[in-house]
Amino acid sequence: MATRREELVSVASRLFAERGYHGTSMADLAEAMGVQKGSLYSLTQSKQELLVAITREGAASFHAALDAVPDDAGPLERIRLALRAHLGVVAAQVSAATVFTREWRFLDEPERSAFRAERRRYEERWSELLREAAERGALRSDLDAGAAVLLVLSAANWAYTWIVPGAETDELADRFFSILLDGVRGYATRPA
Amino acid sequence: MATRREELVSVASRLFAERGYHGTSMADLAEAMGVQKGSLYSLTQSKQELLVAITREGAASFHAALDAVPDDAGPLERIRLALRAHLGVVAAQVSAATVFTREWRFLDEPERSAFRAERRRYEERWSELLREAAERGALRSDLDAGAAVLLVLSAANWAYTWIVPGAETDELADRFFSILLDGVRGYATRPA
Repeated sequence: MATRREELVSVASRLFAERGYHGTSMADLAEAMGVQKGSLYSLTQSKQELLVAITREGAASFHAALDAVPDDAGPLERIRLALRAHLGVVAAQVSAATVFTREWRFLDEPERSAFRAERRRYEERWSELLREAAERGALRSDLDAGAAVLLVLSAANWAYTWIVPGAETDELADRFFSILLDGVRGYATRPA
Repeated sequence: MATRREELVSVASRLFAERGYHGTSMADLAEAMGVQKGSLYSLTQSKQELLVAITREGAASFHAALDAVPDDAGPLERIRLALRAHLGVVAAQVSAATVFTREWRFLDEPERSAFRAERRRYEERWSELLREAAERGALRSDLDAGAAVLLVLSAANWAYTWIVPGAETDELADRFFSILLDGVRGYATRPA
């Protein structure tokens, strides 16, 4: 069973996602928790502390999902599974993913810099997936891998805006992967 | 020369993008304009009215950029030019694009519904571009065109987070287009 603290983090995710960090007050959080504002302070020091907790947990979830992609899968298969993993995290916790993707910029320093470093590390892991695939000859030699990573992470990041909470996203991830892999062009119109 | 009203809309775009709509007060806007708060009311009735102006102008810019794509270009060429057009609008006015993409949800009704309808119309124009290409045999027959539109618009929408204001984006748009068109897979690893 969720502790009151866990409930508060979950409620804060939902309100920050709906109204924005600055659009949510401690009074709003207290009301959503059904307590007096004063009682909230036994669960958190501040709204900022909740934002830190949500974004840290978000980063941990995205990294953990990537960790679960087997090292010994083929390089293209690993990309497919990584895309499933990312969309799966968003679908499992759309509010937290929204706060992670959109409200992180309201973190105070030094947490803001720490967040950006974690996000860069995540992007770097994606670049590594592509690099590995390129080294193993699975990608076309004229590919701009940087643009490919940007394209796939854009799709992954934007997902918080349209994914239905709790939706099964593996099939859609695979459809994205198929387009990323082979493109939209008809074979008849491909240059020889 | 920009009128004071145009200056205010531009200043509001920048502050709403930096601090969020709810993180920006009329006092902040007055300070950034170098006037007393009371004087602002000769230029706008409210913060909300400014949000309406910014999102309406944004929608008009995105539609106008698509309008400029020639009807008689080939169906794939039209998609390439549409992607250039979209990223060009974002680069030309990153703050306004940020507000358009992220802060629109703080519009009051009925503007919020009007905004969503405009956005759907824009997405529908993109779907139409893909549909046209499919009908003319330019896309592979097993393509999930809905997923393709979602992928390309995700990349386009997420662009406000990484595009450098005023940057030349045509080359990057073309790199995205190339990946969208032919995928990342090496010819050697393509199934026969």
